[in-house]
Amino acid sequence: MAATRPRVNATVADRPPRVLERLEALRAWTDASMRPVHFVPTMGNLHRGHLALVEQAAHDGARVLVSIFVNPTQFGPGEDYTHYPRSLADDLAALAATPCEAVWLPDETAMYPSGQDLRFRVAAPAALGSVLCGAHRPGHFDGVCEVVLRLLWQVRPARLVMGEKDYQQLLILRRMLIDFSIPVEIDAAATVREPDGLALSSRNRYLDAAQRQVAPGLHAELVRVAEAVCAADPGTFPALERSALERLAMKGFEPDYVSIRSAEDLGPGNAVNDRVFGAARLGRSRLIDNVAVTRQICR
Amino acid sequence: MAATRPRVNATVADRPPRVLERLEALRAWTDASMRPVHFVPTMGNLHRGHLALVEQAAHDGARVLVSIFVNPTQFGPGEDYTHYPRSLADDLAALAATPCEAVWLPDETAMYPSGQDLRFRVAAPAALGSVLCGAHRPGHFDGVCEVVLRLLWQVRPARLVMGEKDYQQLLILRRMLIDFSIPVEIDAAATVREPDGLALSSRNRYLDAAQRQVAPGLHAELVRVAEAVCAADPGTFPALERSALERLAMKGFEPDYVSIRSAEDLGPGNAVNDRVFGAARLGRSRLIDNVAVTRQICR
Repeated sequence: MAATRPRVNATVADRPPRVLERLEALRAWTDASMRPVHFVPTMGNLHRGHLALVEQAAHDGARVLVSIFVNPTQFGPGEDYTHYPRSLADDLAALAATPCEAVWLPDETAMYPSGQDLRFRVAAPAALGSVLCGAHRPGHFDGVCEVVLRLLWQVRPARLVMGEKDYQQLLILRRMLIDFSIPVEIDAAATVREPDGLALSSRNRYLDAAQRQVAPGLHAELVRVAEAVCAADPGTFPALERSALERLAMKGFEPDYVSIRSAEDLGPGNAVNDRVFGAARLGRSRLIDNVAVTRQICR
Repeated sequence: MAATRPRVNATVADRPPRVLERLEALRAWTDASMRPVHFVPTMGNLHRGHLALVEQAAHDGARVLVSIFVNPTQFGPGEDYTHYPRSLADDLAALAATPCEAVWLPDETAMYPSGQDLRFRVAAPAALGSVLCGAHRPGHFDGVCEVVLRLLWQVRPARLVMGEKDYQQLLILRRMLIDFSIPVEIDAAATVREPDGLALSSRNRYLDAAQRQVAPGLHAELVRVAEAVCAADPGTFPALERSALERLAMKGFEPDYVSIRSAEDLGPGNAVNDRVFGAARLGRSRLIDNVAVTRQICR
């Protein structure tokens, strides 16, 4: 009963999504209707960024399905898998106020029925998966590919909706769909930000008050670099990147990278269709963000 | 026109299969009917073993599709990829006398649209993919998984039909379907043999007349080991394997392995549900075979 659950944003339309915990239940749900499924895969701890994906997924009479699964294979040793925030009751309550019709909640056995050691692996090509975040989180994108490939066979959606905050992930998964001839489209959704520019992220809750004041500086630096790219020769990009790293360090970040790359294939930035990517640690959080070098920025 | 093609076994039922050379044509064919697709993936150079798979696939009103693609990623450096026999006209003629309704003939770009270096990789777990043939052909089964995973998204069949001659491949692919939650069943078909016991294989045509006389010795040795397993303690299996290797070498083979393994998971043979696997080179051919330790053998 919806009334017994905590509600984040109670409206007349509130209806709790159907919760599917077993593959058989998921298959029965997907087979029960001819309407296409539009799918939003998540690791839970839903914020307004996720909810915007759900809203964007609701079109063309589709049924919107959200999955919640904290995928162990995309966390490296020493990363925050065990501490990653889990908030299922709040997530379900938040989804009740969205067009989400069902939530797929696999356990680890449903996702990796052979166990971790005997699972089949998937590896993204190094040119996409070993740069930027991939260089700092070895195997991370392989784990993302592994879980999404499994989810695609489980859910068999018509469309996926994913956020541009994880732009590298978006690009890798788009390439994976093409490479495996998977007839599914990915719709990208713009990054949702706090008023001060900080991109919404589940990991923002690791920030203490002082770090929270500093955190928007990452986005600000990336915007500054993007603006500089408009007027710069690609030969000067490395210098722009270096000075951004220095400025981030001065603000209190431990930066992993700031990098101007082709938005198409993550190759070297060429002042045609570039994007500025950044990642920096701040206390227990590792923040990532990226901004497009658009005509608006290059006004 | 069927009449203009060479026929292997002309019957009243002869009708050339529809040849699909582009992914769009394949998708149009699969979408054109609600009947399920039963799928026989091959590398072409079809022999009676393949045709038996096609016959076995024709049930429950399904449409039988055969793919022909010599998959480069499952050949190692120095293996016979460039020399692997290709015989498309004969293959199509042979299929005209079977229930095969269509042939999927992808080119390398359709199968690997990102190119070889930028393709996404798949890796079987070592316990299945790095033993037996996998120990002698590193990466072979990963290549098989890569191409079959792509074929499954391209064809979206209800069933696959594959031969027990490639038993390790069959087992790995069955595990892959479970591991990725792919809702497709694999039907296994018994190995088709020459009257003298030699398993049919495209690579048999590399044998000269003298080698062809020797070749059935592989199957004979595996049967001999299987019969010995019936009466033996698992502790003696290594000795059985060693003596089989010696006998094969005496017959003129260069054996890669003879191994008694669980038919379930390729673990150590335990006299419960075992299978005897063997691989041996003979001239330019590398022959493989396997036999079950069944009640018939243990009479």
